[in-house]
Amino acid sequence: MITSSSNARIKRVRALQTRRRARQRESAYVIEGVRLMREAVDAKAPFKLVLHTRQMREKEPRLLEMLSELSVEVHAVSDSVMHSCSDVDNPPGLLAVLSQTAVPLPPKLNLALIVDRLNNPGNLGTMLRSADAAGVQAVFLTGDTVDAYNPKVVRGAMGAHFRTPIVSTSVADLDEQLTGLETWLAEAKTGQPYDQVDWSRPTALMIGGEARGSSRQVRALASRSVHIPMRSGTESLNAAVAASVILFEITRQRGRR
Amino acid sequence: MITSSSNARIKRVRALQTRRRARQRESAYVIEGVRLMREAVDAKAPFKLVLHTRQMREKEPRLLEMLSELSVEVHAVSDSVMHSCSDVDNPPGLLAVLSQTAVPLPPKLNLALIVDRLNNPGNLGTMLRSADAAGVQAVFLTGDTVDAYNPKVVRGAMGAHFRTPIVSTSVADLDEQLTGLETWLAEAKTGQPYDQVDWSRPTALMIGGEARGSSRQVRALASRSVHIPMRSGTESLNAAVAASVILFEITRQRGRR
Repeated sequence: MITSSSNARIKRVRALQTRRRARQRESAYVIEGVRLMREAVDAKAPFKLVLHTRQMREKEPRLLEMLSELSVEVHAVSDSVMHSCSDVDNPPGLLAVLSQTAVPLPPKLNLALIVDRLNNPGNLGTMLRSADAAGVQAVFLTGDTVDAYNPKVVRGAMGAHFRTPIVSTSVADLDEQLTGLETWLAEAKTGQPYDQVDWSRPTALMIGGEARGSSRQVRALASRSVHIPMRSGTESLNAAVAASVILFEITRQRGRR
Repeated sequence: MITSSSNARIKRVRALQTRRRARQRESAYVIEGVRLMREAVDAKAPFKLVLHTRQMREKEPRLLEMLSELSVEVHAVSDSVMHSCSDVDNPPGLLAVLSQTAVPLPPKLNLALIVDRLNNPGNLGTMLRSADAAGVQAVFLTGDTVDAYNPKVVRGAMGAHFRTPIVSTSVADLDEQLTGLETWLAEAKTGQPYDQVDWSRPTALMIGGEARGSSRQVRALASRSVHIPMRSGTESLNAAVAASVILFEITRQRGRR
């Protein structure tokens, strides 16, 4: 049992929780909680390390056994050590380090989401969760969009990382990925109403951050723009909500469920 | 200029920012920032007090003049005093206390939203913002749903408080309000697919909190349930997203914009 929060493994987890650089250097990230852990096991996600409290061993003996059988390093830790490396105020008592192995892109994209300059981790997490649920086949992150492996993003995305390809990319590389896709920029007020677009063709939807919108370079990749009509007097929707409303309209029109 | 954060007015603002009880006792709440302030002025919201930094006087002289003309108490405060009574880390430098005067309910409801047991203020704020944009005519809050006048809710709602009736209510009173409305409970997996419901009749949509869903008493008021079909493997959507997707489908079907 690890009881010192200056243990090397614990320091490493803390670095992965708090620093994007550390996550990039190690190409790893952290998940917490029974639910995400189960989804990671189901998805055969590449585990590197598992930490759990003593109570967790009693609460979830079978899950911990399964994790041990994956020949992962599994350690019991004291409550205070768990606290010291958890991203939440009430740690669930179960934490894992995973490799940042993105789900592979399908050979041909039919529905993609591009997220540009979105800073809010809660918003990105919610957007990834919606994209996953709507059947988006790839999410591309551009500009200074918050790290997809930020613990708040991971928590909000509810397992999207295990099912949906999420790719941080440059604008130049993105251009290539978008070959054959109709590219639509979501705007607050201009362009076509989202429910009057024919969404049957392969589509990439672009969403910018709420504060600054999307950059000129990314906007240049969009051939058209689309908006959600709103009651007069209202300005805009939350970015994750706007993305979700349009994505589910695309799914609705295509009727593929 | 107020330079002491133990000034009685400043203490009062701080209490309104942090304690639901204080807000209820005084039937008041706090808004911050130029944008919300403008919307409040446009909506003729009942101002009680305005505080601004010295820089704000230079940045927005006309807005501050307008506020003075409303015969509201307007005070300049030092930066540190503004900090001491702001709800955000980087205070915008403009803050007002308003009366909790809800927008009046229309005589006949055509679209209402019921939010039960939703604890997360960010989620409620986003939901109110969407409801406002979708043209919802009344939002009813039940159970221990977070206070609609919590500063995080107000910030996320982006002025919905000035345009949409928001009413905290008991289940018994709610029952009365719902006379003549078809009541639909949003669920994760059961009931009709949301896009196969005929939404032309007067409708109340019920959404429960993510953690615990809605209470038995509130569920009993719903005659049917509705869900958003999702890609297999995904569990649910963020509550504010789910509400938004269904509300905009209702608006889309009704074609009233």
